[in-house]
Amino acid sequence: MAATLSEKVRAFLQEPRFGVLGTAREDGAPQLTVMWYDLDGDEILMNTTVDRAKAANLRRDPRVALCVEDGYRYVTLYGSVRMIDDQATAQADIHRLAVRYWGKEEADRTAAERFSKQRRLTLRMTVERVVEHW
Amino acid sequence: MAATLSEKVRAFLQEPRFGVLGTAREDGAPQLTVMWYDLDGDEILMNTTVDRAKAANLRRDPRVALCVEDGYRYVTLYGSVRMIDDQATAQADIHRLAVRYWGKEEADRTAAERFSKQRRLTLRMTVERVVEHW
Repeated sequence: MAATLSEKVRAFLQEPRFGVLGTAREDGAPQLTVMWYDLDGDEILMNTTVDRAKAANLRRDPRVALCVEDGYRYVTLYGSVRMIDDQATAQADIHRLAVRYWGKEEADRTAAERFSKQRRLTLRMTVERVVEHW
Repeated sequence: MAATLSEKVRAFLQEPRFGVLGTAREDGAPQLTVMWYDLDGDEILMNTTVDRAKAANLRRDPRVALCVEDGYRYVTLYGSVRMIDDQATAQADIHRLAVRYWGKEEADRTAAERFSKQRRLTLRMTVERVVEHW
């Protein structure tokens, strides 16, 4: 069941920190990746390219954990991800993330130069459990 | 086989950042925990209490990933952990970590007040693979 994020957790996640995403490899060992993310309602929006190991992991097992830490303050979210391979959506979402982390000018330039040549994949995480530490 | 850490990776890890440790739950889903760590030769030293979920995970499956990130600069280590339950060792190791992150005075005070009342567990990670991003 989807969890509702508290105002405190939302405010922390709204700052453009990086997330560490944990997925499960085929052999069951954990894999970690540093990710951009954004809040969208109570969901977490992420984006990757289709050919990454984490995308292969998520096709087999959609369960994830996402940790956003700022030293002793951190939030870890547990839940599962659904993948959206539609390119209009996935390209719009990576552009949205680039604007969040880089600003519009750099995002527009990089979207044209790099992202638009990649096949991107949107990851939408439904949060089931929140661990917070302040 | 144990990996040798490059000087660049060692220098990055020697700064007292936090690590995000990924372990595998019994059901195979990833679990993440924010950790203190220190380099000890080519091994990574960590410490926890015996009753934590990650300790239970590691008893079943010693495979871990540890991600240390500073924005776009990050190092992710893959390997496995052996656990040392001997209290003389485990207490000395949590004190060493507290000195690294808090300084000696605060570490001495907290060791007396808190850690010495806990049953601690040292985690020694052998690194098998390094992913670095600068």
